[in-house]
Amino acid sequence: MNTPVDGDSELGERAYEINADLIDAVLDCVEHNDQPRLIALLDPLHAADVADILEQVSPSKRSKLVELWGHEVDGEVLSELDENISAELLEEMPDTVVTEAFKDLETDDVVDLIEELEEDQKERVLGALEDADQVAVRQSLQYPDQTAGRLMQREVVMAPTHWNIGQAIDFLRSSGGLPDEFYEVILVDPRLKPVGKVALFSLLTKPREVLLSSVMDEDFITIPVTQSQEDVAYAFNQYNMVSAPVVDDKSRLVGVITSDDAMEVLGEEVEEDIKRLAGVGDESLTDTIWDTAKQRFPWLAVNLLTSILASLVIAQFTSTIEAIVALAVLMPIVASMGGNAGTQTLTVAVRALATKDLTPANAWRVIGREFSVGVLNGLAFAIIIGGIGSIWYGSAMLGVVLGLAMIINLIVASLAGIYVPLILDRFGVDPALGSSALVTTVTDVIGFLAFLGFAAAILL
Amino acid sequence: MNTPVDGDSELGERAYEINADLIDAVLDCVEHNDQPRLIALLDPLHAADVADILEQVSPSKRSKLVELWGHEVDGEVLSELDENISAELLEEMPDTVVTEAFKDLETDDVVDLIEELEEDQKERVLGALEDADQVAVRQSLQYPDQTAGRLMQREVVMAPTHWNIGQAIDFLRSSGGLPDEFYEVILVDPRLKPVGKVALFSLLTKPREVLLSSVMDEDFITIPVTQSQEDVAYAFNQYNMVSAPVVDDKSRLVGVITSDDAMEVLGEEVEEDIKRLAGVGDESLTDTIWDTAKQRFPWLAVNLLTSILASLVIAQFTSTIEAIVALAVLMPIVASMGGNAGTQTLTVAVRALATKDLTPANAWRVIGREFSVGVLNGLAFAIIIGGIGSIWYGSAMLGVVLGLAMIINLIVASLAGIYVPLILDRFGVDPALGSSALVTTVTDVIGFLAFLGFAAAILL
Repeated sequence: MNTPVDGDSELGERAYEINADLIDAVLDCVEHNDQPRLIALLDPLHAADVADILEQVSPSKRSKLVELWGHEVDGEVLSELDENISAELLEEMPDTVVTEAFKDLETDDVVDLIEELEEDQKERVLGALEDADQVAVRQSLQYPDQTAGRLMQREVVMAPTHWNIGQAIDFLRSSGGLPDEFYEVILVDPRLKPVGKVALFSLLTKPREVLLSSVMDEDFITIPVTQSQEDVAYAFNQYNMVSAPVVDDKSRLVGVITSDDAMEVLGEEVEEDIKRLAGVGDESLTDTIWDTAKQRFPWLAVNLLTSILASLVIAQFTSTIEAIVALAVLMPIVASMGGNAGTQTLTVAVRALATKDLTPANAWRVIGREFSVGVLNGLAFAIIIGGIGSIWYGSAMLGVVLGLAMIINLIVASLAGIYVPLILDRFGVDPALGSSALVTTVTDVIGFLAFLGFAAAILL
Repeated sequence: MNTPVDGDSELGERAYEINADLIDAVLDCVEHNDQPRLIALLDPLHAADVADILEQVSPSKRSKLVELWGHEVDGEVLSELDENISAELLEEMPDTVVTEAFKDLETDDVVDLIEELEEDQKERVLGALEDADQVAVRQSLQYPDQTAGRLMQREVVMAPTHWNIGQAIDFLRSSGGLPDEFYEVILVDPRLKPVGKVALFSLLTKPREVLLSSVMDEDFITIPVTQSQEDVAYAFNQYNMVSAPVVDDKSRLVGVITSDDAMEVLGEEVEEDIKRLAGVGDESLTDTIWDTAKQRFPWLAVNLLTSILASLVIAQFTSTIEAIVALAVLMPIVASMGGNAGTQTLTVAVRALATKDLTPANAWRVIGREFSVGVLNGLAFAIIIGGIGSIWYGSAMLGVVLGLAMIINLIVASLAGIYVPLILDRFGVDPALGSSALVTTVTDVIGFLAFLGFAAAILL
């Protein structure tokens, strides 16, 4: 394979990482308006790598690069780009180039890209597509965003159940308009309801006279067209599928989803969880500074409110702190430990909910388990911090206060870490969304309250 | 499809979630030793769903369930289980049952399972495998854990380049010992070096006399057998592959990795990142309470150290706090906001490194971008908290101190959030590992230092 992104893990270079020299060479072409060399550089690359190069250069260079590339712009590259970049590029590109680029794409990729266009450009580009594609794309656009309907391609390979393998092969050889890639033939009844799937390797390894119905897999998953893409990705991962038929509300076959799309969604959905837990929206490195700051602002604002709430708790104990200033020094420890323990439990719970490992069937056992873990680690750290506190300020009772507050806060942290996502999930809210802030609010408030409260009661 | 885990999103029931009634029915069989009914219940289920049921019941019930299931235990189910559960079950199961269960599995799954066995049981089970499988499994076990060599199956469908499609189909029809599932035929030269791939749909859509070499894909990725599984998953996702040939250091074909394995790894690797960022190890809901508490302890211990460090900073300002007790009330705000902003940047950076979107080619631009975001949000929150602080305690200067500390800490947070993972990555350490603790240590220390330092300088 002769591409600059090589699979070998050579010293000093990482597998599949875009070579910095290549990016320099590409930028050099842009600077010197060297179209032939640019095309020569980009041509051997996989579309996904070209997309990565476009993502890594600065926005001004990116526009120039695409302009210089001209009619060579590849639809595959567009569909591999970050959404905000492809939207930006599509807006700048002439309609003829856009239409040309869309021609080789499956309907699912066209749908993905076209929904980013302005209404008038969308209509112009749709109008320039072939009739069949146009209808398919318009239909897909009617399904809600992030559902199977948007993810599927409309190009489907199907066959009636009464055919034998020979008939199926003859059909495939003579048929035009097959999808670019497919891995299964879907068997349908006369009403287009899928009744079985035949993997291509079954067609190839059995004699021609064998009936499709005798080699078909009857026990297969069909995806409802309105199913969320998250559930689609889960199904592919859970059942190790390479492709799956999509059906409408009358159980009729309307499309097919393939594993590459499901894999991308799987990655995106975990990515979304990880970012939501950290209080970041759906941002990427290609967002502008202003957009990034704006997106992060609300999460920081929520955190400001919760930390002010914690301050209000502390303010109740002003006279206690005035009497024993050591309390001000030690109080962040208990709150911080609670925040950490809560985040641990929360993260495990959020992921277990996403992978459907945490269900009503075992929720109570998991809650009990988290409580016990909180007790165990609470005891351990109560002893440790109690000892440290006693020695630091030479007061055994201060150590007792620290220890008591620690054990209470770590138990509360465990319970908050499991209850918050469970309750959010029960109400149909993504348990990753805002749960970090909720849990740390609880652990901050309880941390300060327990520590300063015990101090006021015991030490004063 | 007639399984209790239905794809339809009916009201009150979630797609693909194991039905609680089904679990109750299974447990009922276990209680009444009703083997026929148990087999009838589990038989129609997909192996992955049976595995989920086993994971969701309590450990004591689980052993009884598997025992009652007896010789029906399915290898597929074992390979879908959480590692700690399959290890536990394999230990309890008689060798004959284990060997029987392994018979239908591909080598990659056998390897996965067998490495969990005790040395003597491993030898006994290996010895009971068929000779060819035994050799293949032993060879795979020699590759390091979490590499392509462990992930691949040894069963490969290959053909010489001079064949035509008809010859390939005849070979597939007559050949025994093909893998259970395959999607491509790999073309090799006489030294077994892969020179091309032919997708099965190409074999089926073209006439018999067409040469394989004329329909083969030459521009394909080969995976080095020692490549990390993380990079393998990345390649599958980046290049939308369904399967890829694995080669040894002499470029000879030694196995094949399929997209279902890559998808599983992709999920696992993001899962690992999310958990490491939260300070949780590779734990699952099926771990015991003791194991869970033990695994979370070190991370909490690290957090204890960092929060003591923060306390030591505060301790330097004891007299300042004694003079103005309002400082104790307000000081957690600045530290907490810094921790949050740092986590935001850190999370984006860790994921961008994992998806190879953050590379040496754009690192400086990304650092500049994060700095600017820190300045923008720093300014915004400086104004907000400055105003709140001034009004709360009726002191404009206290507001100024809060604002100054906030802007400094949010900038420091941004820089720590991007530099910490970049530096860890440069030194070959997983940037998700321990980076949260490092970043929040920085933001805690700087947060308290800036706020109390400015207060001492300006207010006293």
